[in-house]
Amino acid sequence: MDRIDWRLCFIADSEAASGRDILQLIAEAVEGGVTLIQLRGKKWTSREFLDMGMKALRFLGPKKIPLIINDRVDIALACEADGVHLGQDDMPLPYAREILGKDRIIGISVATPDEAEAAEKDGADYVGAGPVFGTLSKKDTAPLLGLTGLRKIREKTKIPILAIGGITVANAADVISAGADGVAVISAITAAINPGRAATEIIESIGKLKKG
Amino acid sequence: MDRIDWRLCFIADSEAASGRDILQLIAEAVEGGVTLIQLRGKKWTSREFLDMGMKALRFLGPKKIPLIINDRVDIALACEADGVHLGQDDMPLPYAREILGKDRIIGISVATPDEAEAAEKDGADYVGAGPVFGTLSKKDTAPLLGLTGLRKIREKTKIPILAIGGITVANAADVISAGADGVAVISAITAAINPGRAATEIIESIGKLKKG
Repeated sequence: MDRIDWRLCFIADSEAASGRDILQLIAEAVEGGVTLIQLRGKKWTSREFLDMGMKALRFLGPKKIPLIINDRVDIALACEADGVHLGQDDMPLPYAREILGKDRIIGISVATPDEAEAAEKDGADYVGAGPVFGTLSKKDTAPLLGLTGLRKIREKTKIPILAIGGITVANAADVISAGADGVAVISAITAAINPGRAATEIIESIGKLKKG
Repeated sequence: MDRIDWRLCFIADSEAASGRDILQLIAEAVEGGVTLIQLRGKKWTSREFLDMGMKALRFLGPKKIPLIINDRVDIALACEADGVHLGQDDMPLPYAREILGKDRIIGISVATPDEAEAAEKDGADYVGAGPVFGTLSKKDTAPLLGLTGLRKIREKTKIPILAIGGITVANAADVISAGADGVAVISAITAAINPGRAATEIIESIGKLKKG
């Protein structure tokens, strides 16, 4: 696969969007500067998920923005997405790799340094590490990592880290300083009055740091 | 694939089982004489579904009872099941065929003769036709086919038909007379006081008919 710009992943989640048009949110987020999209819809039927994946890809493909499908390896294959993101409750990575082959991206959610180490060993292309901070998007998640926990994960793995959980324009730079290659956000874009501007502000806060 | 005995498919459904041990139900149903298992768990995580599929296959494989996975093409691949069953809300058949290849079974739920004709044209290995009679297992389903509707589906397709919806030992023979190659049941086995005996009674009612 091409080199990925991991800086800002927008997780387009049908439940978080609560009725708002997911494709419109994706378009605004891309316009604002996100570098990666993860599509998630735990309550979609398979047909709805596939349809949404194909529509998203038709928009993202020409823009060279990778599309990652949450959980569903079959949907990723059927819509020819760039990869999948697997939680610890999803299919174990080796099965997904067997089905998807070497060229597709596989990311894994990790909450501890040990999980990050295991993910790298299993051949993950990146880890989503979190929750770093408190968040309203997910309930009953693991204990917060904080910046200290994120640094410990950085020490255990060389593959890209996307920090997730309560990331906003106010703390994105800190998260990158702590060793993340990028951030993944749901609410910071989905719940923003202007999703595109929210994306721009976050990517700029990350960009400035890298230049500095 | 080997020639399939379509006579009696037990749909082992995690929700219908409402807490009862799915693997135990499958074992009793197989002991009673079912010829095919479909595994369904709309609320299972991907990891739970895969784990259940692998356990079911470890039991069914040596007995040469095919295992069909409901909806999830990726789970079918990962656990090396014999095939998938797709509803009209699931992935369209051509995508599933592309992923699964020619050797795996793909079945489609149909509610009309036209859907059955389309399924055969798309390369389905069988159709699940229903609901034939009223049922408590599924709510808000399509209008009932009855035996007349089932005969109309038989006229439109040459591939095997599994009749579904309200099938019991009292009507299984009628359904076969109307043109079905077999029946698929949930409640008739799951809710039985003795699931194995229920399976035996249904398969015997079908078997007697075929000899007659």
